[in-house]
Amino acid sequence: TTGQSVSFVRCGRSLSLPARFVGFPTNTCSYFPQRSVFFSQRYFQSSRAMAAFVMSEEEETLAKRLSELSDVIEAKVKEIGDLKKKKAPKDEIMKNVNEMKSLREEADQIRKKIEMERRLEINKEKFDALMKGRFFFTPSFGLYGGVSGLYDLGPPGCAMKANTINLWRKHFIVNEGMLELDTTSVTPLNVLKASGHTAKFSDWMTREISTGACFRADHLIKDKLELLLQDKTLSAETREKYVHTEASLDEMEGPELEKVLRELEIKAPETNGELSEVFPFNLMFETKIGPTGKNPGFMRPETAQGLFMNFDRLLKYNGGHLPFAAACVGQAFRNEISPRAGLLRVLEFTLCEIEHFVDPTEKTHPKIDEVTSIKTLFYSRERQSRTPMRGDTMTIGEALEAGILQNQTLAYFIGRTTLFARQIGLKEGKFRFRQHKEKEMAHYACDCWDLEALTSYGWVECIGIADRSAFDLTVHSEASGEKLCFFKPYDKPVEISRLMANPEKGVLGKAFKKDAQGIIKHLATLDNEGVAALQKEMESAGKADITANGKTFSVTKDMVKFKEGKEKKTGDNIVPHVIEPSFGIGRILYAIWEQSFYIRQDKEKTKIEDQRGVLSLSPAVAPTTCLVAPLMVKNELLPATKEVVKILSRAGISHSEDCSGAAIGRRYARADEIGVSFALTIDYETLENRT
Amino acid sequence: TTGQSVSFVRCGRSLSLPARFVGFPTNTCSYFPQRSVFFSQRYFQSSRAMAAFVMSEEEETLAKRLSELSDVIEAKVKEIGDLKKKKAPKDEIMKNVNEMKSLREEADQIRKKIEMERRLEINKEKFDALMKGRFFFTPSFGLYGGVSGLYDLGPPGCAMKANTINLWRKHFIVNEGMLELDTTSVTPLNVLKASGHTAKFSDWMTREISTGACFRADHLIKDKLELLLQDKTLSAETREKYVHTEASLDEMEGPELEKVLRELEIKAPETNGELSEVFPFNLMFETKIGPTGKNPGFMRPETAQGLFMNFDRLLKYNGGHLPFAAACVGQAFRNEISPRAGLLRVLEFTLCEIEHFVDPTEKTHPKIDEVTSIKTLFYSRERQSRTPMRGDTMTIGEALEAGILQNQTLAYFIGRTTLFARQIGLKEGKFRFRQHKEKEMAHYACDCWDLEALTSYGWVECIGIADRSAFDLTVHSEASGEKLCFFKPYDKPVEISRLMANPEKGVLGKAFKKDAQGIIKHLATLDNEGVAALQKEMESAGKADITANGKTFSVTKDMVKFKEGKEKKTGDNIVPHVIEPSFGIGRILYAIWEQSFYIRQDKEKTKIEDQRGVLSLSPAVAPTTCLVAPLMVKNELLPATKEVVKILSRAGISHSEDCSGAAIGRRYARADEIGVSFALTIDYETLENRT
Repeated sequence: TTGQSVSFVRCGRSLSLPARFVGFPTNTCSYFPQRSVFFSQRYFQSSRAMAAFVMSEEEETLAKRLSELSDVIEAKVKEIGDLKKKKAPKDEIMKNVNEMKSLREEADQIRKKIEMERRLEINKEKFDALMKGRFFFTPSFGLYGGVSGLYDLGPPGCAMKANTINLWRKHFIVNEGMLELDTTSVTPLNVLKASGHTAKFSDWMTREISTGACFRADHLIKDKLELLLQDKTLSAETREKYVHTEASLDEMEGPELEKVLRELEIKAPETNGELSEVFPFNLMFETKIGPTGKNPGFMRPETAQGLFMNFDRLLKYNGGHLPFAAACVGQAFRNEISPRAGLLRVLEFTLCEIEHFVDPTEKTHPKIDEVTSIKTLFYSRERQSRTPMRGDTMTIGEALEAGILQNQTLAYFIGRTTLFARQIGLKEGKFRFRQHKEKEMAHYACDCWDLEALTSYGWVECIGIADRSAFDLTVHSEASGEKLCFFKPYDKPVEISRLMANPEKGVLGKAFKKDAQGIIKHLATLDNEGVAALQKEMESAGKADITANGKTFSVTKDMVKFKEGKEKKTGDNIVPHVIEPSFGIGRILYAIWEQSFYIRQDKEKTKIEDQRGVLSLSPAVAPTTCLVAPLMVKNELLPATKEVVKILSRAGISHSEDCSGAAIGRRYARADEIGVSFALTIDYETLENRT
Repeated sequence: TTGQSVSFVRCGRSLSLPARFVGFPTNTCSYFPQRSVFFSQRYFQSSRAMAAFVMSEEEETLAKRLSELSDVIEAKVKEIGDLKKKKAPKDEIMKNVNEMKSLREEADQIRKKIEMERRLEINKEKFDALMKGRFFFTPSFGLYGGVSGLYDLGPPGCAMKANTINLWRKHFIVNEGMLELDTTSVTPLNVLKASGHTAKFSDWMTREISTGACFRADHLIKDKLELLLQDKTLSAETREKYVHTEASLDEMEGPELEKVLRELEIKAPETNGELSEVFPFNLMFETKIGPTGKNPGFMRPETAQGLFMNFDRLLKYNGGHLPFAAACVGQAFRNEISPRAGLLRVLEFTLCEIEHFVDPTEKTHPKIDEVTSIKTLFYSRERQSRTPMRGDTMTIGEALEAGILQNQTLAYFIGRTTLFARQIGLKEGKFRFRQHKEKEMAHYACDCWDLEALTSYGWVECIGIADRSAFDLTVHSEASGEKLCFFKPYDKPVEISRLMANPEKGVLGKAFKKDAQGIIKHLATLDNEGVAALQKEMESAGKADITANGKTFSVTKDMVKFKEGKEKKTGDNIVPHVIEPSFGIGRILYAIWEQSFYIRQDKEKTKIEDQRGVLSLSPAVAPTTCLVAPLMVKNELLPATKEVVKILSRAGISHSEDCSGAAIGRRYARADEIGVSFALTIDYETLENRT
C-alpha cells in the first residue's frame, strides 16, 4: 500500500484496519518525534518547509553549535570591519578573515549535515526543468488545463517504469516462484465493505460554506501553524504548543481537528470564508457497475484485495501447502482532496504488491541464509525514540539477532528489497527501513517496516513491508461465509465426539434452490462451537441467519438436525498470516530521479543557467541503454550508424540515435540528461576495423 | 480499440466518429454478408450458434452438395436395409455399405470444411476445464458471487500476458523507436466530450418496466430470431426475412430496433414482462474527480486519448519532425450492458495502442522493403463481397501492387503485425486481416483492417489497424483552442499579404488575467480566413467567443485590432493524419489458448474423460519456459534438482519444479497442459556428467 497511504488511520486507528494504511503522512507532517523545539529562520533558507520540527539530542547539539557559530561569525565580521576602519595591518586583517572563513565553513558543514538528514539537497529548479524538458513526466490533460494529481509519464519515464517492473518481476516473482495474478480495478461494494474501506478509508474534510470549496482539515491547520510560527515575537510557550499541535496532526480524529480549526480561527484560504464542520470524505472513486445504476462499484484503492479474493484458488494451485506468495502489478486509485507534492501524491498509481501467506506459528524462511550478510540502514522503533537521525547500518543477520527484526520471513523480504533498491539505483545511505511506531500500527499488525527514500520532500515511504496477521482473510471469510484457511494435519489423527449439524437436504433444496448447496457446505465447515451456537439460536428463535455465496439466508429449525457424533480429526483448519511487501512504483521512480540528479561541474560554464543536469541512472532501469552517434554527421559515417541501429533494434536493446549536427560533447551531455548508460560513437576507425 | 468495440457506430454511424468503434459486433451478429440464405438443422450439430447465416456462392455450392448427399445417403441406408431383408448376397450388401461409407465421408469432409471456415472446432468442455483447472483465468470476486464481465488471470494467464506485452514492446516500441507514454485512466469530461464519447459511445438498451432489469435491444432480438428460426414449419419467405433482420442488426439505430422489438412482440426473458422504449446507454464508467462532486470524470474507454493529449509534447520530443509513433499500454473500461462470450467481452481490459502520426500527403514508409515479402491472409472488402470464405494468401508487396492496401504505412504495420502474430503463436491460416466494408467505417477513415483470429466463437477481432485521418487532433484542437499541427516548410519562403488580428494586450490582460496569454496565442495562430471570420463577427456583434485553455471567453471589439499586413510565410501548419494499430491483449491471449489447444491422442485412454488437453504454446510467450523434474523422487537426485532451479532463478528464466511422486510421464503431461516449452529431467546421468 505504499505509494500513497493514509488517513484510513486517521479516521480509524482504534478500529481493526489494515496496517497498509499507515504511512506517508506521518512522515510529511512530523517526521521527527517530539523531544524539544528548534526553530531558526536564520539557518534554513527554505523556511516554510522547515519552519517547525522537533529535534533529537544529537541534532540539538549540532543546532546549538550552529547558533553559537552564527554569533561568533557576526562578531568576527564586525571586528574585521573595525580593523579595516582602524586601518590595521593587513596580516592582522587577513588572520581574522581566515578565521571567519573557517568558522563559516564549519557552520556550512553542520548545516549541511542537519539538512541532509531530513531532505535531499538538489537544485529543484534545474531538476524540474530537466524532468519537464526531457519529458520524464507531465501533468495529464494539460491541453484542457490539467487535473491536479494526475500525471503522464513521457518516453524516458515510461521506459524506466517498464524496466523497473520487469526487474521487479524477475527479482521477486520469478526468483521466488511467486504466483502472479492480474486482477481487476473495478471492485464491487461488498468486497470493500468487508475490507473496511467504504466505512473508514477517508480523510477529514471541511467545506467553505458559501462556495462549497473543499479542503483537508489537517492541511489548513498545518499551513496556518507554519504561518503563525513565522512570527518572531511568539512566546516560547505558544511556539511549543503550535509545534506540538503540528507534530500530532496525523494522529488527530475529526473532533480534535475541528477543535483546533476553531481555536486558530481558520478560514478558507484566499476568500477568507466561513468553514463547515469537519467531516470524513471517502477517498475511493465510486461508479456504477452495469446498466441498472443499482450496483455501486469502486476503483480499487490498492491491489491487495484481488489477491485475497483468490486465496482459495491460489492455495489449491500450490497443492494446499503453505507458505506461498501471490503477487499483483496494477493500478490503484485514490480521490485525494487536495493532491500535493507532485508525483508523490497522485490520484492514480501503479502498485506491485506481494501477499506471502504463512502458517502463523512458522515464520521462518528457508532461504534466510542468502540474505543474512546483507548490510542495510535500519531505523528501528527503539532508535527513533532515542535519536531521530538516519538510523544504524547493520546486517540482516545482526538485526535478527538483536531482535530488531522479529521473524525470518520479514527479514528475508527486507534483505531482498535492499538488493532490489540497490539494483534500481537508490543510493546507499539514502534509503532506510523505518519501523512503524507502536501507535502508528493497526492493532492486529505484528510489525511493519517502510523503505523510505531521501528526497527533497524529506524521507518518503516508497515500499511498505508489513506483517498483517490474519486480518484480511478473517474479514472476508466472515463477510462471504466461505472459510479461508489451510489444513494443517496432525502427526496422527485423533477421534473426537462432537455435535453435528446435519442438513435436511430436501427441505433446504426446496427453500433455497441453487443456493442450498452453499448452505450445506457452510454447515459442514462449522466447528463444535459453531454448531452449538447455531443449535442454541434455532432452539430459541426457531431459525437462524446463515451466510453463503455472499448472501444471507434465514434457515429454519426444520432444515437442520443436530446430533452428537464421532469424528476422526486429522488436523486443524487455520487462517494463515500474511506478510505484505508493497511497492509504489511512481514514488520509487521519483526518488531515483532525485537521487540520481546532479549538476555537471564545468569550469567554462560559471553561470548556473549554462550548466547541465545529469541523471546517473542504473543501467538496469535506465530508459535508454545505448546512444548511437556518428562522431561527425558526415555521409560516410551514416551507413555504419544505421547498421548499428538495426543490430540493436533486432536485439531488442533500447537505443537512441543522435545524428543531429551538434558537437559530439553536446550530444553526450544530452544523453547524460536522461541517464543513457552506454554510448557507441561511430568514427572513421569504425569503418576501418568495425570498432 | 480492439479488444472490445462497438456501438459507438450503432448509435452514430452517420456522425463523425472514430473508426475504432467499428468492429466485433459486426462479426458476432452477422459475419457473412447477405447473398442468399441457407439453413439446415440437419447438418449442423450446434444448431443454435449456426442457426442462421448467409452464404457465399462457393459455400452454397458446398451446401447444395451436402443436401444432395444427405438424400442419397438416406436412400442408400434404406436400400441396404431392403437388401438385408431380402437376404441378398453378402458382397452386394458390402458394396452398398462401402458406397454409403464413402458418401458419408464426403459429407463429413464438406461439413468440416464449411464449419472450419467460420469457427474453430475444439472440445470446449475440455478446454474450459483446463483453463479453470490450471487457473489461466477465473471470474473475479467469485467469493462474493462474481461480477459478470470481470475476470482475473491466474499465474499462467498472467505470465503469458506479461510475456506478450514485453514482446510487443520489443517488437514495436524498441524496434521502431516509438515514444511510449504511460497515461492515466481517470479522464475528465471535456476530453471525452470533444472525442465524441459522452454523446455517442452507447449501446441501445431497453428496461423491463416492472422490475427495471436491463437488456441490450439487439441481443433480445437476436435471441428471439434464433428461437423463431428453429421452427421448421416457417415459410421460406418469413425465414428469409428473419435472417435478413438478424444480419442487419448491427447497422440498426434505436428507432429501427424499437420497431423490430414491437413487431416480434418481444418481452423480457424469463419473466415475460413488458419492455420500455429503446434508449441509448453510455458505456463509460462515470465517477467524480475531487471532493466537490462537481467534476465528472470517466474511466477511459480506450487508451488512445492520452496520446492525442500529448501530441504537442511528442512532436517537440521528436524535434518537430514527422512521422513518429507514440504508444501506450494500459487499462480501458466499458460498462457493458450484458457481457457475453467470456474473456472476449469484458468490463475492463488491457490495450496496447499505437498512434503513428504522418504527413497526410506522405504515407510511404522507409522500411517497407523489410515486409513486402511477408505472406499473410487478406480478406479484402472486395473479396468479402465476392466469396465470403477465408480470404486470399498473398504477400504484402502483392497486396500493395493490387491496390488492396492503399498505403505503405498501413502495409508496413500489417506486415509487422503478421510477424508478431506468428511469434506469439497464432496459427497460420487461423488469423486473417479483414478490411472494413465501406458502410462499416466512419466517414473520415480512409481504411481499416482488423486482425481476426479464428476461435470457437467465430472470427474475432483482436487487433485493429485503422487510418483515422486527422479526426482526433482536429476535434481536440477545436475544443481546446490549441492548434495541434506540425510545421511543413516550403522549399523557399514566400511573401504574402494578409489580414492580421493584433491583440490589445493591456485590455485583454485586464479582462482575462492569466488566461489572456492563451487568447493572444490563439489570435496568433489564426490564418487569413480565421481572422476574416473573427473580424466579421466582431463588427456585427461587437464581440466574439474565443476558446483557449479549454475555456471559452467573450472577447470584445476593443481587444483586437484588425490590420492588413505583409508576412513572410516559410511553410504551412498541417494537422497530421494518424494510423492506429490497436491490440486487445485479453482477446489475443484467449485466441492463442483456443488455437493452441488439442487433446492428446492416447491409445490406452479411449474414454474422453481420461484424455488430457495440451496447449502447444510458442516459447516466446509460454507462461513457464522450463520444467525441472527429477526422473524419480529419490534423495540422490534432489540436490542436483535444487541446483538447477537455483541457476534458472538467478538467470530469471521462468521455471516450475515438479518433485511430486507422480510418474515422469504424468508430470510431462501436466506441464503440457500449461504449454511449458522445455523440460529438464534430472537423472543419474546428470549426476555423472552434468547433462
